[in-house]
Amino acid sequence: MKVVVDPQKLSNEVKKFKGRKKTIGFVPTMGALHHGHLSLIKQAVRDNQKVVVSIFVNPAQFGPQEDLKKYPRSLKKDLKQCLKAKVDLVFVPDAKDMYPQGHITFIEAGKLGQQLCGISRPGHFRGVVTIVAKLLNLVDPDVLYLGQKDAQQAIIIKKMVNDLNFPVKVKIMPTVREKDGLALSSRNVYLNQEQRKDARVLSEALSFAKLLIANGQRNTARIIEKMKQLINRKKHAKINYVAVVDLEELQNLKKINKNCLIALSVRFGKTRLIDNEIISYV
Amino acid sequence: MKVVVDPQKLSNEVKKFKGRKKTIGFVPTMGALHHGHLSLIKQAVRDNQKVVVSIFVNPAQFGPQEDLKKYPRSLKKDLKQCLKAKVDLVFVPDAKDMYPQGHITFIEAGKLGQQLCGISRPGHFRGVVTIVAKLLNLVDPDVLYLGQKDAQQAIIIKKMVNDLNFPVKVKIMPTVREKDGLALSSRNVYLNQEQRKDARVLSEALSFAKLLIANGQRNTARIIEKMKQLINRKKHAKINYVAVVDLEELQNLKKINKNCLIALSVRFGKTRLIDNEIISYV
Repeated sequence: MKVVVDPQKLSNEVKKFKGRKKTIGFVPTMGALHHGHLSLIKQAVRDNQKVVVSIFVNPAQFGPQEDLKKYPRSLKKDLKQCLKAKVDLVFVPDAKDMYPQGHITFIEAGKLGQQLCGISRPGHFRGVVTIVAKLLNLVDPDVLYLGQKDAQQAIIIKKMVNDLNFPVKVKIMPTVREKDGLALSSRNVYLNQEQRKDARVLSEALSFAKLLIANGQRNTARIIEKMKQLINRKKHAKINYVAVVDLEELQNLKKINKNCLIALSVRFGKTRLIDNEIISYV
Repeated sequence: MKVVVDPQKLSNEVKKFKGRKKTIGFVPTMGALHHGHLSLIKQAVRDNQKVVVSIFVNPAQFGPQEDLKKYPRSLKKDLKQCLKAKVDLVFVPDAKDMYPQGHITFIEAGKLGQQLCGISRPGHFRGVVTIVAKLLNLVDPDVLYLGQKDAQQAIIIKKMVNDLNFPVKVKIMPTVREKDGLALSSRNVYLNQEQRKDARVLSEALSFAKLLIANGQRNTARIIEKMKQLINRKKHAKINYVAVVDLEELQNLKKINKNCLIALSVRFGKTRLIDNEIISYV
């Protein structure tokens, strides 16, 4: 397994793969790898002859008040996990090489980036799609692997790939969860014991919503109200949003009359967690 | 020579070139080809084993009051010229395929796109870099050829290519001029006889500026004033801007103390013409 820091060197390595007509699977990450990331990596290894993982805590997607500095970093452990999973190349660039002085070009995700998490994180998805575009240009993969856990991110990146004609297939893999239902997230390590216990309510609220829908409820305001009631019972939970939106434009739905996304964001202390479920309309 | 309309088909054709390890030169145009375009195409043919030309009047770079509808189109003649120049593939997409309904992703050129022509053409360079990024993803060329005539555009595209790590070399070719100095432009056909005569003043003003600089003038306000005086003597000329800017950030310079760009935009009737010279500081 090669570990490459220099973007130019990455391009050269990738060209070697291409020269040998290998298909490349690519998993972009911010490190602090957990079983969610590993499920993407394993799928990439199954599907492709070469797999590239990037580990880069992208400053452009953090707001000034956010956790860029204290975002969990565990490079050594991450590299061991990549090696074990048979990754071919890990790209660990420096911020100064990804955003050299004078960098001014950014990709705007439009209104998709202004809904849900975009409301309280202005500029976040701009940073996300810009770094993904840069990485796609450097890695030139055949398949890009993303996690369903960050549903809005996955939808926006897929849209960017289509809108800008990036020659890559996007594969979105299911959310991996703890036994009690909590979606895996690198930020879960921020939680203290009590917050961790309360954080189960995210997946519980989603399951409850699915149950309501299975029982015929189609009114999204009612569903959201019930979810909020459930979440608000937890002492450490502060709701950021609970929303039911369509899958194309992420617009709030009044009635469930098509496939949709139930998404929520809840703070536990200073830790912002998200979770979601896709509802297939039948 | 192949003529391709469908973006997906273009990608397939390009993959064949790639499979045979051919280098690809790419010349993006809006058609109405003149000797300026042809100088780019000829250079691309000299440098590469395969040459792709795109002909697409890109709606995203025209303002609502601009000349999208009446922009000159001469597809048949353009194709003949491409054939004669030994172009391998001409891509002539439809707007509905390049911007399908729901397209929302755009690339922002930042402050570079807000200076010079960007002041009176808000959104223009956003449209330019977005379509070029899309075409780069579709064509995947080794070398991209641009004309010095559109200096701001060339500088912004080069910046976008670097900032977003597009794996392509950018080659900027000199402006091609009529005998009397007028820079070739597809929009020159809009000029009536009197306007055409007056339009010589663009290159005359630039030559005058170069003369002033050669004689030791370093004060840009003086140089600009003299240029404006010269232009204003022409009955049909209405100055949009005359500027002396640095080559990296396109910021106005007070003194010529480094390499710089003298750029001007002048209207003749409804026709907006631009021209420029790069000044090497010695």
